[in-house]
This record gives sequence, structure tokens and C-alpha cells, in this order.
Amino acid sequence: MTLPARTAPPERILMGPGPSDTPARVLSALAGPVVGHLDPFFLKVMDETQQMLRQVFRTENKLTLAVSGTGSAGMEACVVNLIEPGDKMLIGVNGVFGGRMKDVAERIGAEVITLTRPFGEVFSTEEIAAAVAEHKPKVVGLVHAETSTGALQPLEEISKVVHAAGGLLLVDCVTSLGGLPVEIDKWQIDAAYSGTQKCLSCPPGLAPVTFSERAVAAMDARTTKVSSWYLDMSMVRNYWSNQSRAYHHTAPISMNYALHEALRVVLEEGLDNRFVRHRENHLALCRGLQAMGIQYAVEEQFRLPMLNAVFIPEGVDDKQVRSRLLNEFGIEIGGGLGPMAGKTWRIGLMGAACTKRNVLLFLAALEDCLRDAGCEVTPGAGVAAAYRE
Amino acid sequence: MTLPARTAPPERILMGPGPSDTPARVLSALAGPVVGHLDPFFLKVMDETQQMLRQVFRTENKLTLAVSGTGSAGMEACVVNLIEPGDKMLIGVNGVFGGRMKDVAERIGAEVITLTRPFGEVFSTEEIAAAVAEHKPKVVGLVHAETSTGALQPLEEISKVVHAAGGLLLVDCVTSLGGLPVEIDKWQIDAAYSGTQKCLSCPPGLAPVTFSERAVAAMDARTTKVSSWYLDMSMVRNYWSNQSRAYHHTAPISMNYALHEALRVVLEEGLDNRFVRHRENHLALCRGLQAMGIQYAVEEQFRLPMLNAVFIPEGVDDKQVRSRLLNEFGIEIGGGLGPMAGKTWRIGLMGAACTKRNVLLFLAALEDCLRDAGCEVTPGAGVAAAYRE
Repeated sequence: MTLPARTAPPERILMGPGPSDTPARVLSALAGPVVGHLDPFFLKVMDETQQMLRQVFRTENKLTLAVSGTGSAGMEACVVNLIEPGDKMLIGVNGVFGGRMKDVAERIGAEVITLTRPFGEVFSTEEIAAAVAEHKPKVVGLVHAETSTGALQPLEEISKVVHAAGGLLLVDCVTSLGGLPVEIDKWQIDAAYSGTQKCLSCPPGLAPVTFSERAVAAMDARTTKVSSWYLDMSMVRNYWSNQSRAYHHTAPISMNYALHEALRVVLEEGLDNRFVRHRENHLALCRGLQAMGIQYAVEEQFRLPMLNAVFIPEGVDDKQVRSRLLNEFGIEIGGGLGPMAGKTWRIGLMGAACTKRNVLLFLAALEDCLRDAGCEVTPGAGVAAAYRE
Repeated sequence: MTLPARTAPPERILMGPGPSDTPARVLSALAGPVVGHLDPFFLKVMDETQQMLRQVFRTENKLTLAVSGTGSAGMEACVVNLIEPGDKMLIGVNGVFGGRMKDVAERIGAEVITLTRPFGEVFSTEEIAAAVAEHKPKVVGLVHAETSTGALQPLEEISKVVHAAGGLLLVDCVTSLGGLPVEIDKWQIDAAYSGTQKCLSCPPGLAPVTFSERAVAAMDARTTKVSSWYLDMSMVRNYWSNQSRAYHHTAPISMNYALHEALRVVLEEGLDNRFVRHRENHLALCRGLQAMGIQYAVEEQFRLPMLNAVFIPEGVDDKQVRSRLLNEFGIEIGGGLGPMAGKTWRIGLMGAACTKRNVLLFLAALEDCLRDAGCEVTPGAGVAAAYRE
């Protein structure tokens, strides 16, 4: 075999469901010299990363760290540490990621009770309260921002009903963290996981997680070992603890450099400013798309700002448009997942990719593709409407 | 909280048990623009990476890919996919990593039979044959290069006895791959895992794995789901297959760029040249250390070239010497693990770090530290002996 050529990645604009665009300073941090996983320098990077993750999660939780895998490893880490075989877990399934959580929990012997809603809808506090009262689950798992549907699950009230029944609330914040308020302490969430490659605008490869004292107590009370050695928090936390630093596995050094810098970018901007930016660009995109006759797949009040799921206009070829956007404009958007495949596009406005520049460019590029596909679009309507209320 | 400063990692010479030094061109590849995990460009990177991994593993195995986690995730991926609850697994434990494999297997309900040897020793084909004949395990797990002890397990003959009893041979090649012959097809190994940060000289974060057709058949014959969703090869392999490309999890894009470039570096040099380089520098280090009165912890015929475990001279403070090496010379070496803690040093000569320059520098630096610690060392003896037989 001849040797493949050196990789020369194209410069995309990442407006899909993640990864999102990574700022140059984060890529530059990623390429820093590698040190050992027990080097005093790296231990300091870990400490600072934990401090910054606590700020981004808005929590005082001591057990807050980055799991050495992508977002789905974060999901698995939370579920396998909180659940023992036979434990009851109530999971809200209204998209692909709720379904994935169910699969993860069943594999380790959880007794899973599923609450379902059609893709694009969310759960009311009342229906969760009723299910919690009936089943008294040890853990309730919900997806804050369903990346597969673009729907936002309100969480403010839910921990009360879960705690009242003695349960723990586990939340998937993969797509929301850094782009929408995720108030771990205020909302009394017991465990949460995220990914680096969405609104934190770091490459994929790590999964920030946080566990409340209540969750840690439940983990400490286990009578069986965690099914996964790699994700066992009783050992991982000793490596991240600045008291013990017991070697567990070799941490992905470079990815941790990148996350450290990405968190610095997030906190320099300030979380509240960041949330406003996500909201404003989302509303602009929304106005632009609607002026072009494109409809959202989610009711207005439950729309995610960073992940816009819209119906593909009648008669338009999904893949053709996405290929043209990619090949002609270098813009990636996502197709639908699960039952939404071929029916929706998923347009991301995450982290560094959530800019006025990208919104206007995308609207102009999409108009170009749609008109070539024979759609009736008023020329310039999307761009004209976006930032003018 | 004030924001921590941007990371500015020191430039170490990594001569510990891994990570090893990463060539600048690999770090540069790591920092390439991020694309989506289903981008045609990235799918090509995956295809090429698989082709190069097959060459490095010396196998035709179709199911050869990089697991999205560090080496221990590769270990877990192999064990959890091959073992179902109640399956018998025979594991050779002569160091920390054999012990880890036992822990991983027990957590998912394997009936583990342990073959033990003191740290630093290896198993004979005869004793493995006897245990296999007695227990008829589904899987036999052995560590090729025990990073905790510096011992090399001969493997050439073992698959025959394992296969004769209907079992599968699983091998830990974390530290050997790229620095010592790992002949997956010739030695008929059924499953193997490695890490990127040892002799492949890529940052830590991915775990190359390979499975024989026999192993894939065993996985396909499972009657239970794999305990880990994240590591379930029945799904992971569809994402890596150039026929299906079914989305599973978001791959760590940047780490895969780095592995692609690191494999190019390995294959440009050529595996055989690389093995000779590891052997020659190991022998030079060995002559230098012996001239300084330092003894190896492993019998000569079973010594790993890339991981030199030596006894700390009587009366010398382990941590003080390692700190001085790190702080004064920027050289990282490893301490002992498990029962070897405080008794041995582990000196790595892995991948890009395995050079004449590093061997001579290390011998000179160690002499400096030892003489300051009051050791009797003939001045210049180590450096003088290293490359002169």
C-alpha cells in the first residue's frame, strides 16, 4: 500500500448538530507540547479545568470533571455510576438521546420505566410528577436539549417532584451547556453530563460531568461495583482529586489543554452574554427562515436557540441541498435523526459558530440552493428579515 | 474567581511509561480545522487510518479501528465485547495491567481464572497450556508488554494451545505496538488493543483495536447485549464500515487527525527499522546503566526495549531524583507501580523519544543526580559505555 497523504482538512463552517467551529486559540492550545498525566503542570490544568467547569455548570459540586470520552461516554458514566442492577430508572424519551439513555440503563440491568412523547415535544412537570409518584424511581433521566429534535425540556420545577419521592435527577446537557442556562445548583440537578463539541466550541473528545453530594452519597452506598472500570467514578475521582492523585488511566492530555482554553473563552465572554448571543442569533435565523417560508419542527416556546430543527420544504431533495451547502459554501448542517430522517434539517448555532456573519451567510446560501431546486423564495427575503424585527 | 491563565505547557522529554514525545508534525495535524464526524473528508481519514492500523498490527482483520478513549477503554472494549456473563476467561496476572483486565472482566460477570506470576516474570507456554486444558476458557487474556514491570510475554506459540481448546486469545499491546513486533495474523491473535501515546508517539486519547474473524463470530453469536453502549462493537463497527456509516457517537475528530499523522510517521520509518531502533537504544541504555551500577528488574531475555524497569540504587530517594530530572532537565521518568512503588524506576524509550540523543542525555543527567545524592558512580561511565560495546 502507498502511504496516504498528510491530512489537509477543509475549513468548514460547522452549523450542524455538533461539532461546532473551534476558535483558533483553542486549536492552538490543543497543539501544545504533551506532558505526562501526573506532571505537576498537568495536575494544575486539571484543577483549573474543574474550577471553570463548576462555573459553567453553575455549581459548587466537588465532583465535577471531564470524562475521557465523548458526550455519550459522559451519559454512560452518569448512568452506570448511579444505577445498580435492579434499580428503577424513569427516562423521558422524546428523541434519540432519551432513547440512548434507556439503552445504556437497560444494558446494566436497570428496571427502566419509559415516559414517551413524540419527537419535538417535551414533558410537563405534572406528567413527570405522576410517573415519579407511581414508580418511585431511584433516578429520573431527562434530556435538557434534545439534539435530535431541537426541543428544550424545562427543568426548573422538576427536581422538587423527583426529590420529594426520594429520587435523583440526571440531566443530559450535551447541547445546552454554554449556550443556555444550566443551573445545576439552583435547579438542584443531581447529575449532569455534557460534551465539549457543542456550545463550548472545543473539539469532541471529552465529556464534562458533575454530581451533587446526594448523587455521590448514592454512589458511595453501592453494594456492587460499577459495570465499567473505565468510567468508575470511585476511581476516576481520586485521580482528579487534588488530595490523592491516584493513577487511574492516562488522561487525554491534549484534549484537556483544549477544554481548558475553551472554558477560558466561554468565561471571558461571560455566560449571560453568551446566552443572549445564542438567543439573538437564533431569533434572527428564525425570522430569516420564516421569511423564506420555512417552518420550525418545534413549538416556539420550546425551541432550542442552538439547534434549529426545521421542516425541509416540500419537493426539495434533502441530501442534494446539504451536499451543495457543504461543497459550494463549506457549510455543514445536519439531517434529521430517527423518525425525522429526510423530514428535517438541523441547523446549529453553537458557541463560536453562533454569529451574525454565519446567520446571514447561511440564509443567503440556503436561498441560492432552494432557488436552484425550483423553490419559490422571494429573493433576499431571508437575509432582509433576519436582523430587522 | 479570576480566570486562570492560558496554558503554557513546558517542553518535556517524555521518558516515562507514556505518554511519549509527540513529533511536531503530529501536534500540527492535531490542530487542523475540525470537520463534522460524517463529513466525507473525515470518513476518508477513518478509512486511511484503518488501512494504516492494519499495517501496524500486521493483520488483514477487517474490524480494526480506533476506540474513542485511551488504552484502558481499548482493554474494556475488547473484554466487554468478547465476554458474556458466566463466560470463562483465563487471565495472566504478572503486573498491574493483567490485574486491571481481571477487574474489567469480573465487573461484567465473567468467571475469571487467574494465572499469577510475581511482577517482572512472564508465563511459559506450558503453564498456559495446562490451565487452558483444565479450564477450557472462552477467552485467554495476556499482556504482551507489561508497562508496570517492563516484562515481555512471548506470544508466538500461545494461540495454538488456546485455539486447540476452542478459546480466543486477547492481547494487551498498549506498550508494544510500534516498538516491538506485534504479529496479529502470524501469531493468530484474536483480539488486541493498544494506546496511541506509547510507541506510536501520538497524544493519549484513542485506543487502536483489532478483532479476528473468529472473534467477530463470537461477538455475533452473543445472546446478550454488550454491557457498554459506548464500546459496543456491533454499533461502532457500522460507523467505521465504509458500507454503512451509521452514526453512533461523535468521534474525537482532532485526535483521529493526530493518529493518522502518527501512523504515517511510523510507516514512513518502516516497522522493522523502528524495531531495530528501539532495540539498539535499549541496549545502549542498558550498557550505560550497568556501567553506573544500576540493575534491571527483569531477566535479560524478557526485557522490554521501550520500558526499562530498573532497581533504584540503595539509599537513593526515588521522588527526589525524579523531581530533579523533571525540574532541572525537563526529563520525565516513571516510578514503580503496585508492589514496585519506591523500588523501581521505569525509563521509557518509546517512539519519537527513543533516540541516541535522549539515551546519552538521560545517562548524563542521572549521573549528575546520583552523584549529588552521594552515590558512587564512576564519572562519565554511563555515557562512555552506552554506544561502545
